[in-house]
Amino acid sequence: MVRTPRPVIGFLSDFGLDGAAATCRGVILAICPEAQIVDVCHTVRKYAVADGAYLLRATLPFLPVGVHLAVVDPGVGTVRMPIALQTERGDLMVGPDNGLLVPAAEALGGAVSARLLADRRLWRPTTTPTFHGRDLFAPVAAHLAVRHARYEEVGPEIALETLVRLPERAAHAEAGALETVVTYVDSFGNLRLAGGMAELRAAFGDLGDGQRVVVEFRPDGREPIRDVVRYATTFGAVAVGASLLYIDSLGELAVADNQGNAAGRLRVDAGHAVRMTLGS
Amino acid sequence: MVRTPRPVIGFLSDFGLDGAAATCRGVILAICPEAQIVDVCHTVRKYAVADGAYLLRATLPFLPVGVHLAVVDPGVGTVRMPIALQTERGDLMVGPDNGLLVPAAEALGGAVSARLLADRRLWRPTTTPTFHGRDLFAPVAAHLAVRHARYEEVGPEIALETLVRLPERAAHAEAGALETVVTYVDSFGNLRLAGGMAELRAAFGDLGDGQRVVVEFRPDGREPIRDVVRYATTFGAVAVGASLLYIDSLGELAVADNQGNAAGRLRVDAGHAVRMTLGS
Amino acid sequence: MVRTPRPVIGFLSDFGLDGAAATCRGVILAICPEAQIVDVCHTVRKYAVADGAYLLRATLPFLPVGVHLAVVDPGVGTVRMPIALQTERGDLMVGPDNGLLVPAAEALGGAVSARLLADRRLWRPTTTPTFHGRDLFAPVAAHLAVRHARYEEVGPEIALETLVRLPERAAHAEAGALETVVTYVDSFGNLRLAGGMAELRAAFGDLGDGQRVVVEFRPDGREPIRDVVRYATTFGAVAVGASLLYIDSLGELAVADNQGNAAGRLRVDAGHAVRMTLGS
Repeated sequence: MVRTPRPVIGFLSDFGLDGAAATCRGVILAICPEAQIVDVCHTVRKYAVADGAYLLRATLPFLPVGVHLAVVDPGVGTVRMPIALQTERGDLMVGPDNGLLVPAAEALGGAVSARLLADRRLWRPTTTPTFHGRDLFAPVAAHLAVRHARYEEVGPEIALETLVRLPERAAHAEAGALETVVTYVDSFGNLRLAGGMAELRAAFGDLGDGQRVVVEFRPDGREPIRDVVRYATTFGAVAVGASLLYIDSLGELAVADNQGNAAGRLRVDAGHAVRMTLGS
Repeated sequence: MVRTPRPVIGFLSDFGLDGAAATCRGVILAICPEAQIVDVCHTVRKYAVADGAYLLRATLPFLPVGVHLAVVDPGVGTVRMPIALQTERGDLMVGPDNGLLVPAAEALGGAVSARLLADRRLWRPTTTPTFHGRDLFAPVAAHLAVRHARYEEVGPEIALETLVRLPERAAHAEAGALETVVTYVDSFGNLRLAGGMAELRAAFGDLGDGQRVVVEFRPDGREPIRDVVRYATTFGAVAVGASLLYIDSLGELAVADNQGNAAGRLRVDAGHAVRMTLGS
Repeated sequence: MVRTPRPVIGFLSDFGLDGAAATCRGVILAICPEAQIVDVCHTVRKYAVADGAYLLRATLPFLPVGVHLAVVDPGVGTVRMPIALQTERGDLMVGPDNGLLVPAAEALGGAVSARLLADRRLWRPTTTPTFHGRDLFAPVAAHLAVRHARYEEVGPEIALETLVRLPERAAHAEAGALETVVTYVDSFGNLRLAGGMAELRAAFGDLGDGQRVVVEFRPDGREPIRDVVRYATTFGAVAVGASLLYIDSLGELAVADNQGNAAGRLRVDAGHAVRMTLGS
């Protein structure tokens, strides 16, 4: 007998660790008992759609093709639409239309289709205005995973252009300077930044290992914070406690303190603007 | 071949995230390799039996029928009894007889039988006085899940009336006022309260959306804390940062700050008494 | 049909809860779809190799025989070697050669062989200098679990004597005094100590329940902290809030506050030296 692999369901939320995610896992398993649920993260900063979008984009490309459920949903119970997306890679994504899903869909080859969740037969029989994760998103994801329903059955197609998108976070190089933005602060306190090697080269040419870079963080409404870091390829290339600018495991720019916590030291957060210039 | 669904084992504890829960998962999988363990919560406030009982009651009804293991056990190694319960829905629950299991059993249709864990052949060969989760509860749950043992074999039946029960937390309506109590503070800082729509109606009749309600929290030994909130059906019905009284996803009363943290702002905790009256 | 048990993969890291561990889970499941991943802990104190080693040693003996993946790796991207160990019990362990794996291997009957990870066909096609968990360790563990590769294929054997080992933490008894060290602070704030009943008896003979013991903690560079505790076999034997010295569930010495947090009260941490004498 060929044993069909268990359907993978990636699951991200800002539900915290105290029961709401387990409720959704229960709903999924009641519909799709063989689901292999992969908890991506449930401690996304509350209501931080951009953090959740970052984590989905960073993580889902490393999961097997599957049905992915994501709920960071400050607008639950309002007019924001519940949707499903189909990706070029073959994944389906289920969640709110608030920008949460789009960056990951792009990392999975791009969204090829979007649908409104409208067929209530795929939802829980009664729904509440405050827990769409349990009542809509989890059951739809599970019905898709177990192939009780085809993607086309969740509801009518909607134009990809109408999807809500988060403000773009990009790097802009000029000669001798790089403007970028903190895209995420990871659990080590490392500051992930928009842009990668191409933007770094456009601004500064080829940087040598150990080159000093001046990094100015510009939190909204506070004085800029200036730090001098060294360009390096890995943590071990600088002393313990020293700061480095490096290309992270996604191929993007990052600033870290080796075995320290740069975000805590600098009091910098996701969304803060950053300007880099060469140090002497 | 019909593939038997994997046996579901719900698992809640106050063990935290650092290894004790994994030890129990290992013990379970060594006995029942196909177990689908659903971690309900392991960050229950240390020793907070009532918090654990709330989370089990809120979550287990959404899990498939299974064997559920729960360990919040300040009395480990003392005279409190290790027990198993059978529920009307068909679930088995395993844990300490300290009130932790009973509310969830009631939410699963009621406990129909209780047994003392007494057959040591279902325990680990050696037991310790400080880790009954690993030594008693997890192996008994796993033996039941894999059907090495029938429920009747865990030990002698005990009368349901003798089970330890937590003090009841209920709402009491009078004309124009509702006395209730905080049953749980969730990870969003939302204050879950005893009682639901029936009690609300008994106190105030039909509330219109936006109606002002005065909520007075009465922490033990501290000054009462007074807050004015608006009745609403969902978060999005009030401004960001504003407070609302709503019927939560369990059909019970709750007070929250929209995209804020009401418990943090008000410094209110589970167990605190609450009195509501209509505002003008 | 005999259903082969799903291969167990224990997984410990200091990655935190925000996506890196899920990335590795995804990499594992893409290679070994039937893996039963047992998350041991992902909130190991950042870079604390000794904490991770303690938790692996405490937990893995209770997991089924499997392939275990461990990543607490402050030296990622430097000269420290990526290795696999084979244990007497039959487990395979994969991680950095920094002392993290050895104590658990000893608890699993001892390491019988060690190999350098060198065959890049078992790694991700491209590797990065900052995320060997995703790029090397997880795929090697998954290939071993699914039996795409035999242990002998991961790379050349290395001498067990050359493995990096953490400084030994042991208890030393003299007549009337016991010198030991805090090996771990658990999530309850209980202080786990080196040594067990043998060392306790060597120092003090047979202790009666309730015997007073003076415990002096000696944090580096701070004044010693003196506490008087009672010897007891379980928490319930002392009053709520009182301190006890007991033999923990691993058979080792520990100091705790019953339903309190001893580490928080005393401000003691892993690695601190401890001296015990009898109280009057």
